[in-house]
Amino acid sequence: MRIVVLTGGIGGARFLVGVRAYAREVGAEVTAVVNVGDDLLLHGLKVCPDLDSVMYTLGGGADPERGWGRIGESWTVKEELAAYGAEPTWFGLGDKDIATHLVRTTMVNAGYPLHAVTEALATRWQPGVRLLPATDDRLETHVVVSGPATAGDSGADGPDGGQRAIHFQEWWVRHRGDLPTHRFVFVGAETARPAPGVVEAIAAADVVLIAPSNPVVSIAPILAVPGLREAVAGGPARVVGVSPIIGGAPVRGMADRCLAVLGVECSAAGVGRLYGGRSAGGLLDGWLVAEEDAGTVVPELTVRAAPLRMTDEAATAAMVRAALELT
Amino acid sequence: MRIVVLTGGIGGARFLVGVRAYAREVGAEVTAVVNVGDDLLLHGLKVCPDLDSVMYTLGGGADPERGWGRIGESWTVKEELAAYGAEPTWFGLGDKDIATHLVRTTMVNAGYPLHAVTEALATRWQPGVRLLPATDDRLETHVVVSGPATAGDSGADGPDGGQRAIHFQEWWVRHRGDLPTHRFVFVGAETARPAPGVVEAIAAADVVLIAPSNPVVSIAPILAVPGLREAVAGGPARVVGVSPIIGGAPVRGMADRCLAVLGVECSAAGVGRLYGGRSAGGLLDGWLVAEEDAGTVVPELTVRAAPLRMTDEAATAAMVRAALELT
Repeated sequence: MRIVVLTGGIGGARFLVGVRAYAREVGAEVTAVVNVGDDLLLHGLKVCPDLDSVMYTLGGGADPERGWGRIGESWTVKEELAAYGAEPTWFGLGDKDIATHLVRTTMVNAGYPLHAVTEALATRWQPGVRLLPATDDRLETHVVVSGPATAGDSGADGPDGGQRAIHFQEWWVRHRGDLPTHRFVFVGAETARPAPGVVEAIAAADVVLIAPSNPVVSIAPILAVPGLREAVAGGPARVVGVSPIIGGAPVRGMADRCLAVLGVECSAAGVGRLYGGRSAGGLLDGWLVAEEDAGTVVPELTVRAAPLRMTDEAATAAMVRAALELT
Repeated sequence: MRIVVLTGGIGGARFLVGVRAYAREVGAEVTAVVNVGDDLLLHGLKVCPDLDSVMYTLGGGADPERGWGRIGESWTVKEELAAYGAEPTWFGLGDKDIATHLVRTTMVNAGYPLHAVTEALATRWQPGVRLLPATDDRLETHVVVSGPATAGDSGADGPDGGQRAIHFQEWWVRHRGDLPTHRFVFVGAETARPAPGVVEAIAAADVVLIAPSNPVVSIAPILAVPGLREAVAGGPARVVGVSPIIGGAPVRGMADRCLAVLGVECSAAGVGRLYGGRSAGGLLDGWLVAEEDAGTVVPELTVRAAPLRMTDEAATAAMVRAALELT
């Protein structure tokens, strides 16, 4: 059995722990296609937050309390950068984490594509699933906001009160999404190509799972890579999504803010409709919602309710089993 | 009064502490022209060991025990890089130190010349003297060695037992100079230009001091920048050198190994002759040697003996006073 998972960072990484456990049980192969829209250059380092969250979590190196970054992390470099007045200061790079970015940046600058760099980094972490970036090309999520720019904003200033685009991380980490927000733009999406292996993995899969990641800024940038949505929607594999919304609220993160920008209801039904049923031009065959949301109806979709709290590996593997029973 | 000091890293940095103390006493201005021949790229970071040693030492941030790097340093990034198997592992970058290299590398990649980057970094450290790299251009000391190459050598392999050139840091830090060594080459010296301000500072100086740094790999690469030796030897300032050799041995470092490669006697007289008297086509007017070396004679040079152990700031300032009395 071959399973492909489309995934963002932290929530998706936890979901993948369950997918891996299930896969070990039944002898399945897992390929994770990971969002790169959050990627950014910081102090000259290429940082891939979602790839790293997945790699660290599956490799046993993630901080389970904080949810992101490395366990036992220290912050010496960050403090020193601040002592130099080096901007930005709103994104904290830990010392352990920085080593990952140094290795990645050196390899990227030497000409290696991101998927090859990801594979090289994974030889240390042995995540137990194949990790692929959605694309090797630049595809960055930017956010069109309005209101006066403040010092250090990455976006070009419009006239006062006009619209400007800032990097997603600036919107998310620095401003906590708390700006008048108009839309999300996937910069570079028009010319991005799926990373080698992505389309092939989807074509060879028995099932494609959409992790309970943020549909707007984790899953949508993956699907924005030309050919990728078509590969999923038009492929032979059954496609099942797992709702990131439980009882009308995201389990973590700010999917509610993101959905509001799109005018989509923050509910299991709202996200289910956003993805849509395959038979109606959408993406999914099945939609797994939380038991709190039992009774959710989405046109053209088989909906099932199950416990969706990823409290531990066994609970998460049970979620995965429930999702696969929808296929 | 204006003082220019040509200097390498650790020993020169300690000497500069004394120069600064003397200068504060008499109200002099000090410009340090610092060797860049040791500079290298490590894990994509531009590292300038001599500039940093001077900056950290004068800024109160150097580790006085180890002699190089930052006080209270930690090594998390280094351990993590090793866990990734990232080469080279023989050059240890501390966490605090890495922040300096990140700021520098980001600025260099953004197009700032090294002297401007150095000035920016110094705004934090307030070294109290003007720090100038000898050149903004690439000028790297390489070492021609022979013997079979080992894994990770940077030099191109010659035939077995043939000659190959390796970066100075590899020779110095990794091999401790313990290889059959034929000569030193200053890669890029032919086309390097003095950094803005260097020639002007020398021309405006009352005295140029040659710090008790390694004459072969710290001072010679400075003088290898076209126009710089001429500016010193042909300029109006008196030129006084301070011997790095006391009683036939270097105070620290491996000047003995370097001098041996050139066939120069490891003595105060040997180094004095290497620099040479200005009236005989050399560089110096005066040569300050240690009291242990009293009686040293160098043709065409005024030689004076004084205590040369840089045990503390006052002792070092007294050395500087003795050097200036030679002018």
